[in-house]
Amino acid sequence: MNLFRALTIEQALEILRAHIRWAPQSEKAGLVEALGRVLERDVTAPEDVPGFDRSTMDGFAVRAQDTFGATEGLPAYLDIIGEVLMGSAPGGSVSVGQAYRIATGGMLPAGTDAVVMVEYTEQLDEHTIGVTRPVAPGDNTVRRGDDITRGALLLTAGRRLRAQDVGLLAAAGVSRVSVVRPPRVGVITTGDEVVPVDAALAPGQVRDVNSYTNGALVEVNGGGARRYGVVGDDFELLSDTVRLALTENNAVVISGGSSVGKRDFTADVINSMGKPGVLFHGLAVRPGKPTIGAVVDGKPLIGLPGHPVSAMVVFELIVKPLINPTASKLSLRARITRSLSSPPGKEDYVRVALSYVDGVLTAEPILGKSSLIVTMVRADGLARIPLESQGVSAGEEVEVIPF
Amino acid sequence: MNLFRALTIEQALEILRAHIRWAPQSEKAGLVEALGRVLERDVTAPEDVPGFDRSTMDGFAVRAQDTFGATEGLPAYLDIIGEVLMGSAPGGSVSVGQAYRIATGGMLPAGTDAVVMVEYTEQLDEHTIGVTRPVAPGDNTVRRGDDITRGALLLTAGRRLRAQDVGLLAAAGVSRVSVVRPPRVGVITTGDEVVPVDAALAPGQVRDVNSYTNGALVEVNGGGARRYGVVGDDFELLSDTVRLALTENNAVVISGGSSVGKRDFTADVINSMGKPGVLFHGLAVRPGKPTIGAVVDGKPLIGLPGHPVSAMVVFELIVKPLINPTASKLSLRARITRSLSSPPGKEDYVRVALSYVDGVLTAEPILGKSSLIVTMVRADGLARIPLESQGVSAGEEVEVIPF
Repeated sequence: MNLFRALTIEQALEILRAHIRWAPQSEKAGLVEALGRVLERDVTAPEDVPGFDRSTMDGFAVRAQDTFGATEGLPAYLDIIGEVLMGSAPGGSVSVGQAYRIATGGMLPAGTDAVVMVEYTEQLDEHTIGVTRPVAPGDNTVRRGDDITRGALLLTAGRRLRAQDVGLLAAAGVSRVSVVRPPRVGVITTGDEVVPVDAALAPGQVRDVNSYTNGALVEVNGGGARRYGVVGDDFELLSDTVRLALTENNAVVISGGSSVGKRDFTADVINSMGKPGVLFHGLAVRPGKPTIGAVVDGKPLIGLPGHPVSAMVVFELIVKPLINPTASKLSLRARITRSLSSPPGKEDYVRVALSYVDGVLTAEPILGKSSLIVTMVRADGLARIPLESQGVSAGEEVEVIPF
Repeated sequence: MNLFRALTIEQALEILRAHIRWAPQSEKAGLVEALGRVLERDVTAPEDVPGFDRSTMDGFAVRAQDTFGATEGLPAYLDIIGEVLMGSAPGGSVSVGQAYRIATGGMLPAGTDAVVMVEYTEQLDEHTIGVTRPVAPGDNTVRRGDDITRGALLLTAGRRLRAQDVGLLAAAGVSRVSVVRPPRVGVITTGDEVVPVDAALAPGQVRDVNSYTNGALVEVNGGGARRYGVVGDDFELLSDTVRLALTENNAVVISGGSSVGKRDFTADVINSMGKPGVLFHGLAVRPGKPTIGAVVDGKPLIGLPGHPVSAMVVFELIVKPLINPTASKLSLRARITRSLSSPPGKEDYVRVALSYVDGVLTAEPILGKSSLIVTMVRADGLARIPLESQGVSAGEEVEVIPF
């Protein structure tokens, strides 16, 4: 238990993962539904692609050796003995001095090993061409299995399918795949001062932002968000809601309760749910200090800060890696336009706007108090100032997590 | 008409846009459904956010001037006359030498203008604190309207809503927005040699990849794809399908027909649909040369190459800007690992894998024939070699469009 030590992101994730027991369920998906889903298991190729030797050009299928030495001055003359029809195997086979007319994608007739582009031929009569440039065996062709060899590993488990991945599956004749069922994440907002977005606002009240931002981030990360709305600071009521959310979901995020008293309150509710309960209280991260990390019966419960901006930053750093472990890890490097100080012993995440200035990717810190959601709207990403650093100087290169 | 001149991407888009007449329809969406949708009109703030002066810390709401000069040795003593309850307006008001207990997010009582963090106070008795550090007016508070001022422009028309944008709307009490109805795009694959993904494959046949890749790219770009399957090279059949697709959609993509004869065939079908018909035949782009651009009755029809890879590249360059004009234009700059030659007068788009090598974003060209879909699966983006360039040298910086 590390209740009284502020953890780094890596330490926090390690402790959570040590207690999470989550065997994702799978389901079958056709290729249209599979876009954006995560493969549950490796997929191998059931057949060669292409399934036959193909032309990649419009022209004539030939025996390459018949064209050796051909020039414009002294073409190689070949008899046209047929035409390849698209989508069927050519009937005949080609012997010395013969050729088949062929279009892009056509199947090479038996005996041929190359294609002469139509641009390098001259039609002498209906049945004869002169080839004005030699071809080597294999020229302007794709061989059976060149793209995909039967039995080869096409895509590995855990991959999130993009358009081209779905295309690869289609090419190989894989029409259904086993995909991971999206994690269901319960989203709870707490706070006596928080009211629904369409309520009339009394003095002292604020609108529920976190249900929307946290729910949206669940969906952006491929999960299914179940929203439980706003729960007041009532132990029984919050306990009932958290218990229900734990039953109905693979993970739960609770936002609010970032002030000292409320944080303890949220932690008490979580601890009353089961074992091991709260694993840490506080992150060495700015913004995001008052984060609670817990696991109950193998399911993660994350207590996010109440400030929408801090909640979004912690979601990005803690919740996203848990619910979307295959998310791209590719961060950017950008030159920061202002010097920023950072207390050592804290990772700082600074909202930045990105642009190219004189060809250099540049990160402009967004000014404004961290509680202001408009700062997040203006931002393109988070610049990271590492734990050990005391700050960055204007013009220095920083790591930026885009969003 | 530019039928015989290969156009640049910019020229092609300009010609298409000059003929497209497309007034996107709008619909209302709640904040949950609004994620990822495009705003149809500007949204202004109906109220100030926050709606009252708030504390950003746990501590005591004070009159800042009462703390001036306070030190640990000589604290400023204040009477605690009440506690701010979350979600309601404090009843009393604060006079000289008085303070209210307040938590993060609480509403400042009348008369106060700053918050002293609890860490800089000492509790003397139940009703008295000593403040050991002065605060300035405004310290540890957010003022009414600091985040959003009533009437201010929140988000502009054309913006695709991210999690934080939805959060901003929620904060301002905007529970429904007017969003653009997603463009519907008809997806047609042609070719006698192309068979559905779950068909038995005869020699000379290949599977339909483009229906899946093009359909997926429509969806990735926020559109709705309507798939018409594979149509053989039959003028009447293809005409009927294109006509239906034009009726049912805002745009149509037809893939296949990249060989000379087939290209003319597809162009003839398109021209038979109406005016102005085919606007260009061929792009100065590699891969992607045999692209057809057309508009019929104000709707774009794009004839994509038959090769899945070429079709995807042209989709990215031509179709995406038409159906998803608000897509991020932020490209990356990366150091290319190999020298590549490029014919002048052609824009080259080279598939690359991206990674950081010694802190520098590096683009490794994916080798392999352009017809191989596996090359696209291995790639993270397209490196662009401009029209006028004859190539790039290893180590040079190139522009990369990520995908």
